[in-house]
Amino acid sequence: MTILSRRRLLTGGAVAGLGAVAGAGAVAAGAEPATLPGAGTADVGTATVAFHGPRQAGVAEDPPAHAAFAAFTLAPGTDRAALARMLRLLTDDAARLTQGVPALGDTDAPLAALPARLTVTAGFGPGLYAAAGLPSPVADLPAFTIDRLEKRWSGGDLLLQICADDPLTVAHTQRMLIKDARPFAAVRWVQQGFRRSPGVQASDHTQRNVLGQLDGTANPRGSLIDTAVWNPDGSTTLVVRRIRAEIEKWDILSVTDKENAVGRRMMSGAPLSGAAEHDEPDFTTLDASGLPAMPDFAHVTRAHVTDPALKILRRPYNYDAAPDAAGNPDAGLIFASYQRDIARQYVPIQQRLADKDLLNEWITPIGSAVFAVPPGCAPGGWIGEQLLS
Amino acid sequence: MTILSRRRLLTGGAVAGLGAVAGAGAVAAGAEPATLPGAGTADVGTATVAFHGPRQAGVAEDPPAHAAFAAFTLAPGTDRAALARMLRLLTDDAARLTQGVPALGDTDAPLAALPARLTVTAGFGPGLYAAAGLPSPVADLPAFTIDRLEKRWSGGDLLLQICADDPLTVAHTQRMLIKDARPFAAVRWVQQGFRRSPGVQASDHTQRNVLGQLDGTANPRGSLIDTAVWNPDGSTTLVVRRIRAEIEKWDILSVTDKENAVGRRMMSGAPLSGAAEHDEPDFTTLDASGLPAMPDFAHVTRAHVTDPALKILRRPYNYDAAPDAAGNPDAGLIFASYQRDIARQYVPIQQRLADKDLLNEWITPIGSAVFAVPPGCAPGGWIGEQLLS
Ligand code: HEM
Ligand code: HEM
Repeated sequence: MTILSRRRLLTGGAVAGLGAVAGAGAVAAGAEPATLPGAGTADVGTATVAFHGPRQAGVAEDPPAHAAFAAFTLAPGTDRAALARMLRLLTDDAARLTQGVPALGDTDAPLAALPARLTVTAGFGPGLYAAAGLPSPVADLPAFTIDRLEKRWSGGDLLLQICADDPLTVAHTQRMLIKDARPFAAVRWVQQGFRRSPGVQASDHTQRNVLGQLDGTANPRGSLIDTAVWNPDGSTTLVVRRIRAEIEKWDILSVTDKENAVGRRMMSGAPLSGAAEHDEPDFTTLDASGLPAMPDFAHVTRAHVTDPALKILRRPYNYDAAPDAAGNPDAGLIFASYQRDIARQYVPIQQRLADKDLLNEWITPIGSAVFAVPPGCAPGGWIGEQLLS
Repeated sequence: MTILSRRRLLTGGAVAGLGAVAGAGAVAAGAEPATLPGAGTADVGTATVAFHGPRQAGVAEDPPAHAAFAAFTLAPGTDRAALARMLRLLTDDAARLTQGVPALGDTDAPLAALPARLTVTAGFGPGLYAAAGLPSPVADLPAFTIDRLEKRWSGGDLLLQICADDPLTVAHTQRMLIKDARPFAAVRWVQQGFRRSPGVQASDHTQRNVLGQLDGTANPRGSLIDTAVWNPDGSTTLVVRRIRAEIEKWDILSVTDKENAVGRRMMSGAPLSGAAEHDEPDFTTLDASGLPAMPDFAHVTRAHVTDPALKILRRPYNYDAAPDAAGNPDAGLIFASYQRDIARQYVPIQQRLADKDLLNEWITPIGSAVFAVPPGCAPGGWIGEQLLS
């Protein structure tokens, strides 16, 4: 509370966020625009995203620069009543920390002061429903031939997706939430990832991923997110895949080979059938040799969906762990995807990619988990109350 | 080159940096100031730090938000001529990448476009001098009773310290440099760390570390850096210690206990003998009970040095790796310290801390490495030329 009032004094404003998100003020055109001089990213540290509402935060907003995906295994005997106790606690922590207020009993209160667009999003795995004696709306993905799944990156009864523009804020939030989850659940895995730092690029410019590709171009935007992602009750679902990239093999490809594998240009992100990043790919366009400009085996050709109700919202983060002694990177994507219905939207795309996608030569799924994302809650309420109270 | 000219067009300026560093424009007073609204951090992505000069970059500037410390073991038979070849290559890469220009043969050129204050600093371990048939100006630290050193975080013939305000820039730079070092050296360890994101705090405000402490207060500044850090020839030395924190034990201490362990206030960073962060600690001040206000066993009391020539420049980064199943964090500091002379400046402080420092209850050195940091070079020159050519 001391911190809260100090900060009120300092910033001359209320700490409780109204969903206002400070973004880079300027949009630059071209291949690699940075924020323009003077445009800047004001108030990166104090920016907040509203926690309460009919839908959870951390899904539809521009992804902040840093994320920790923490998955838990429930302790044996954690029943419906215990789940409710745990989720009340975690909801209370998240409601405070996202607004820059220390958690109750926060053991490191000064680190709560700069939320930097912090969001905490809870997802429920099949095991949580089993523990509560309820049917699960989500089921593990079917096995795909490309999968080389490792247990240490797969599954989970509960997921907390923690995102913020500051890595120290993520670290502190992770620590506080894990501490409060501990009586009920063990940590199954934690995956930490990153995107561009705040202010490095205009916030509505597509980011490059660790493979150097513009990643996010064809994502649904605005009201199309409602169509693809949100159920009428405010719920959605989340797939988290850890996808390792054979990045040095990828790196030595020619630019043309990279472009053919994806179906888009490396510099501009334009589909091979078009000229600008946001041109719709046209799969009937032929190239000079009379072949489809968008190769049949290209990632975008295989992944493309036209029906807005069947699209998915991709929200991936890069990871880059320590290389081995020979210098081979351990890098790739923590591929996170939100959609109303995993079976209807995600699985058919993943199946088409598993069947044929040239990119498979350089990427391998090594982790997989699915979660139902329950609706948000009002002040005083808690995530999961519809299900567990 | 395409990228270079594109960027010239876009930014309306030369890419080659003149050492200009974009920082947060405003300084806020008080305990937890963020950048003030409108102050912002313009041009975070395109900001460059000059590479060429009599001293290497990456030492005296404000530390950027992200760092990778990559240590290498030379391949058997890497002689003086091979070392020179390797260092020419790495210098050329660093000279380009730090200015936002792809490395020669950069296999992922688009990722070179936003340097975000990138610096690459090379350090030479005792083994590099041995390989060159030269006497080493640095030697491994003596063993301290507090040490629990692990081989996987210790030693190294060559170090590349890669810092930038963007984690993707660090990842790309690390990849390119490791690739070019590969014919000569194996990766021994890589430690990745972070500080606050750009724009989260005014750049001249002391950062908090992962233990919640204001960390950096008593560092030498301005011309005192020359006194403590730089030899007349432009060389310096670097100690890298990986120091694990028993952070949950630390967390449950009362604020007063935390303050007594360090000798400074948690919120303000003021010494217990004073009122404001930058008050000089006074070891003669007594508290109400007639005991020294700065406890004898406090970290600052033990570490304090008055002679400007004996101070060290601390440039630590936080690390926060995945917690174990019980949720215990794997977190602490990648403690990096620059000084003219390790034996004269660093070792006595470390010895006093090892002998008696209450903070030792919660921190454990698990890695240790020492490097001579040779002078910088002029355009066309290379790091190490004085030694190896
Ligand atoms: C490391 C793994 C992956 C990489 C590097 C990658 C990269 C890309 C790139 C560069 C694009 C084009 C630009 C864009 O629209 O964002 C793209 C599009 C897309 N990707 Fe992926 N992707 C990966 C995994 C996946 C997975 C696992 C799925 C789903 C199962 C997926 C589904 C899609 C979809 C739906 C599109 C948009 C296609 C369109 O309608 O144009 N991707 N991906
Ligand atoms: C995890 C390990 C460590 C932590 C958490 C830590 C924390 C701190 C803190 C909070 C301060 C006071 C604020 C400041 O001046 O920055 C400080 C000061 C200092 N520390 Fe450390 N420190 C650690 C390790 C070390 C080591 C290994 C050394 C050197 C061997 C060292 C040398 C110093 C010095 C010289 C000062 C300034 C003392 C003065 O003149 O006031 N610290 N440290």
